[in-house]
Amino acid sequence: MTSPDLQEAPAEQHAVELSEELITEIAEALDQGQIERAVGLVSPLHAADQADLLEQLPSDQRVALLSGLRLTFDPEILTHLAETVRAEILDLLGPKNAGEAIAQLETDDAIEVLQDLDPGEQMALLATLPMPERAAVEQGLAYPEDSAGRLMQRELVAIPEFWTVGQTIDFLRAKPDLPDDFYDLFIVNPRFEPVGSIPLSKVLRSKRGVSLTELKLKELHLIPVDMDQEEVGFRFRQYGLVSAPVVDARGRLLGVITVDDVVHVIHEEAEEDILKLGGVPEPDIFAPPMRTSLHRAPWLLVNLGTATLAALVIAQFESTIQEIVILAALMPVVVSLGGNAGIQALTVTVRALAMKQITKANALRILGKELAVAGLNGIVLLLAAILLVLGWLGQLDLAVVFGAGVIMTILVASLVGVAVPIVLDRIGLDPAVASSVFVTTIADVFGFFAFLGLAAWYLL
Amino acid sequence: MTSPDLQEAPAEQHAVELSEELITEIAEALDQGQIERAVGLVSPLHAADQADLLEQLPSDQRVALLSGLRLTFDPEILTHLAETVRAEILDLLGPKNAGEAIAQLETDDAIEVLQDLDPGEQMALLATLPMPERAAVEQGLAYPEDSAGRLMQRELVAIPEFWTVGQTIDFLRAKPDLPDDFYDLFIVNPRFEPVGSIPLSKVLRSKRGVSLTELKLKELHLIPVDMDQEEVGFRFRQYGLVSAPVVDARGRLLGVITVDDVVHVIHEEAEEDILKLGGVPEPDIFAPPMRTSLHRAPWLLVNLGTATLAALVIAQFESTIQEIVILAALMPVVVSLGGNAGIQALTVTVRALAMKQITKANALRILGKELAVAGLNGIVLLLAAILLVLGWLGQLDLAVVFGAGVIMTILVASLVGVAVPIVLDRIGLDPAVASSVFVTTIADVFGFFAFLGLAAWYLL
Repeated sequence: MTSPDLQEAPAEQHAVELSEELITEIAEALDQGQIERAVGLVSPLHAADQADLLEQLPSDQRVALLSGLRLTFDPEILTHLAETVRAEILDLLGPKNAGEAIAQLETDDAIEVLQDLDPGEQMALLATLPMPERAAVEQGLAYPEDSAGRLMQRELVAIPEFWTVGQTIDFLRAKPDLPDDFYDLFIVNPRFEPVGSIPLSKVLRSKRGVSLTELKLKELHLIPVDMDQEEVGFRFRQYGLVSAPVVDARGRLLGVITVDDVVHVIHEEAEEDILKLGGVPEPDIFAPPMRTSLHRAPWLLVNLGTATLAALVIAQFESTIQEIVILAALMPVVVSLGGNAGIQALTVTVRALAMKQITKANALRILGKELAVAGLNGIVLLLAAILLVLGWLGQLDLAVVFGAGVIMTILVASLVGVAVPIVLDRIGLDPAVASSVFVTTIADVFGFFAFLGLAAWYLL
Repeated sequence: MTSPDLQEAPAEQHAVELSEELITEIAEALDQGQIERAVGLVSPLHAADQADLLEQLPSDQRVALLSGLRLTFDPEILTHLAETVRAEILDLLGPKNAGEAIAQLETDDAIEVLQDLDPGEQMALLATLPMPERAAVEQGLAYPEDSAGRLMQRELVAIPEFWTVGQTIDFLRAKPDLPDDFYDLFIVNPRFEPVGSIPLSKVLRSKRGVSLTELKLKELHLIPVDMDQEEVGFRFRQYGLVSAPVVDARGRLLGVITVDDVVHVIHEEAEEDILKLGGVPEPDIFAPPMRTSLHRAPWLLVNLGTATLAALVIAQFESTIQEIVILAALMPVVVSLGGNAGIQALTVTVRALAMKQITKANALRILGKELAVAGLNGIVLLLAAILLVLGWLGQLDLAVVFGAGVIMTILVASLVGVAVPIVLDRIGLDPAVASSVFVTTIADVFGFFAFLGLAAWYLL
């Protein structure tokens, strides 16, 4: 059916994407000192891909590539870099080039680049920005970290409510300093309060004479400028927004948040939960070992403390273990099962809280459900545990004590796994951050105590 | 400055959002049998909020509310429900009402609702759909689960490349069956292959006489119809896309994926990783206890098996423990620290793989860095561990054995934490799913063996 002589689309309209092969080729070129060849391969890439490439190259190749890119450096790259790599690249660019690059970014992107820097470096770079941009960035940086104010761009399209479609289109055609991309028009009243929004697709499909108020406006989800970005992400996801107006305390339009920024927020917030649950306080894959160690060691030291608590419990039962040494082999099994059941309950609860699926209305029911699950799984594992010890050691009374220890520990750890994050959330703390250490500590301390205590009472 | 007599925006243009207070009020109304009052409170809510509410209500209130909503049931609610609750709601609606609701959804949403159902129920509901919709949905369901084909909507706006802005606007104004919302126009050649895209904002800002080819088209990121949704999410996030064309194997335009669907995918994929790392195979907060238990118990049984391996190692050292019983109290500390260090390395690696930050080019460097971190943290904990045992028990030789066990276990567990997910990823398996059980098992087995082995050799 296809005839090859029809006009062919020029190949360049399909974006080049970063691949393993391309990375290898670029790394080879850099190793052989062919900087121009490397730059030729890198330049067609999207800024996000160039950022990924810079992150992945070893330090010497990174420096070499950057020396080649200096003249054609795409400022957008800065917004896509991991924090530690970004700081290095800004250093390499030097304050003058770095300042020029940042000046070309939209406000929200410039803020993202500057906000993680040391105060000294931040000041130095701010000083290089031309005045209107500098004021806008400083205003943005005055909003709390991770707030809507930092995410929003001030470039926006606000239209008075009494205009027609035709007036609106003429205005858009004539006005030079509009944002690069926008998806909704915000309709404002004389007090500059947003009263509705119209998707561009609706404007395009309406006749010129139609007045904007005749078009059914989309209901507005106003974002207060101090709203936390996690909450902003939730609203975009929940209500399928592509852009949303940010307002000040008096309800006046300040800026707009667009979905491309929110995609990153949603990703970042889930990322943070994953890392915190894994005991990693910040994304650190590209950080130098010393910095990563400084971030992760405190968690391990806390863990040493909590594990010591458990060891103190075991030490109380020295004489019991002396008499029945096999208890020492079985007791880690008890706490391991309890810990894992608790972590399952914890993981589900932490995520449900993040998605606002747990409220006062159902918190008790969720707790009850998790306890029912713990009971069911406890019975399954009680039976498996008894069979295991019977098969291995042939001692029924030991098997029963083991099974009882297992089910009790699973129940207690699951209870803690649900209750701790809910309580932390209620009192305004982040449920992801310290919950897993709570759960495993309780599983350990309680598990050793229950199992060894039962053994001392029943077997001796 | 603001004068209160200026025209006020009608309050209804600000969307009502779900709050804890509103949930309580609705639950009270339902408990008191005031179904109409409850429906009046629920109806102004966005479909996603109505879905959240239905999820959170206990079963009897859910049934009561649904009986009230039946006549005005917003079909969009179905797309926002958790799988288990959705199945219940479809049952309550009955095949006729459920079929009518699904028929009103866009293709991609109808597919999302139908794809998780039992084959029998799916067939029954498909049979109620009117013919063109039914064929489109069946075609969608023929694509692999979690593929671009299931995510895309077939409703799209494709424009021939030789049109002008004016022709395009006239076409959009005249054509009745366009999608509800669209953000880019896709330009196709005579073979219906996409050759470029134009954001609507650019069309709106250009004069009628301008030809589309004169506008700088956005580079296209084509999505093959069989691409995995995780990959689709990555591209949207990486390249800041709001919509992207989906093409068949011959490169012809089949449909379009929009960012609102991708926001959910990005969220879902991160969610899946969190749950898998926590040993939970699927989101189950609203599932009945028996179903949740069936999903989580296998993981605990695997854990019983791996913990038994560790117990067998300990059992080899019965005589050592008999002589130095305090070893039994110290050994769980060794494996706990090793396990936690390993999980830190694992968490970072799994996420870096998901974000394509680890490639052949840097895998070895990342491994080296994690080992350096393990070495640094190992030294910190070695010192802390020695001080702890000295302070507690005052035995230098035991303290040294303990410290040595700690640093060795941290090194081995960290190595496993980085290497296992990278290897699983290379051979095409999901690195999140079984990695944590690997890491903790190795930490346990190696940790007990190293610590007790050293003790047997050095202290006896």
